[in-house]
Amino acid sequence: MKRVPLKQKVLKENDRIAAELRARFREQGTLALNLMSSPGSGKTSLLEQTLSHMPKDMRAAVLTGDIATENDAERLRRVGSATQITTGGSCHLDAKMVERGLENQGGGPLDILFIENVGNLVCPAGFDLGEYAKVVILSVTEGDDKPLKYPTMFVRADVMILNKIDLLPHVPCDADKVIENAHRIHPGLDVIRTSCLTGQGIDEWIAWLQGRLREVRSRQAR
Amino acid sequence: MKRVPLKQKVLKENDRIAAELRARFREQGTLALNLMSSPGSGKTSLLEQTLSHMPKDMRAAVLTGDIATENDAERLRRVGSATQITTGGSCHLDAKMVERGLENQGGGPLDILFIENVGNLVCPAGFDLGEYAKVVILSVTEGDDKPLKYPTMFVRADVMILNKIDLLPHVPCDADKVIENAHRIHPGLDVIRTSCLTGQGIDEWIAWLQGRLREVRSRQAR
Repeated sequence: MKRVPLKQKVLKENDRIAAELRARFREQGTLALNLMSSPGSGKTSLLEQTLSHMPKDMRAAVLTGDIATENDAERLRRVGSATQITTGGSCHLDAKMVERGLENQGGGPLDILFIENVGNLVCPAGFDLGEYAKVVILSVTEGDDKPLKYPTMFVRADVMILNKIDLLPHVPCDADKVIENAHRIHPGLDVIRTSCLTGQGIDEWIAWLQGRLREVRSRQAR
Repeated sequence: MKRVPLKQKVLKENDRIAAELRARFREQGTLALNLMSSPGSGKTSLLEQTLSHMPKDMRAAVLTGDIATENDAERLRRVGSATQITTGGSCHLDAKMVERGLENQGGGPLDILFIENVGNLVCPAGFDLGEYAKVVILSVTEGDDKPLKYPTMFVRADVMILNKIDLLPHVPCDADKVIENAHRIHPGLDVIRTSCLTGQGIDEWIAWLQGRLREVRSRQAR
């Protein structure tokens, strides 16, 4: 929707609410993450694995965004706390939806808030949700050229989860080439290779989360 | 971008150009198809297979939309006629881009024009491109719940290509369940199962195209 002049106004209002959310997360020492990917790259599966493998003393919850259905929240509630945000047609989450989702969620301050965006590798990258970091999940089935074809998402991401690596023997995708292309768009981008079917890489991802949580805590203390 | 009031105006202008394109395609007896899917579901691979297996007397060409890169047109030019439309950030093709793409393409009237949309299972469904039919491609790696989670795309589609069926033994996806979910959203939706790696289902897809082309020709004669 590049050519709609009112977009600037919408984005300004979004940025105001996102700034409030960011201040709240910082004050409470919450690591807030915005998880984005194409439909079916494995956001919900990654969160199922993450909630199952999280250290027991860590308070975590998920806000999960979808255009329709409560399926993802239902899946995630089997392993942890999850609240559905149904966007009613919108192709991305915005900060207002996250604010309302937090109200619906209730509960006390969190160590980690995972915000699972609508499955869309384009539009969600344009909306600040007050998160500390953006996580892009890319499945090896999507092909090794995707960072070049959807550059904004990969420029803005803080980490790329290269998921479904168990399928590498069966698909025409070179994992090193995906990472090389991601680094052409975003030099130094953190990369973690995972399989949510086999559990490979989940420990590394949890360690990444713990590192970011330590950063958030040290900023909170200042 | 549901909440931007100017969207109505943009859509009205889009519909005006789409109606002109539709009239032109009808007059020339061209079957115009709008191919939509998530990133990496196999739109370009399907078109590579299609152009390679098309009857020799059929004049076909592709307009291929991407946010960035000319990669897809370069791939497709090895097997047929292809023109890249680079959207410069926009998450979907609109009728104006197709009109300009046709100007850049040149050449005479076509039997089939394939319009490969930007990889996005949400926004492209909202923009009429003057096509005769909408084609949604869904890969089995995306999971069997996708028709329920992205209903607009499946309501508006005229056929669903269920692609990458060669991967079914390796992914937690039930093809019958995908089709059942698609039919819950859109009863009677045509479905073709394909693998662009093995070539399975391509003959059925070509036969579907020939059936639609006969419809277009019979309307042209009226």
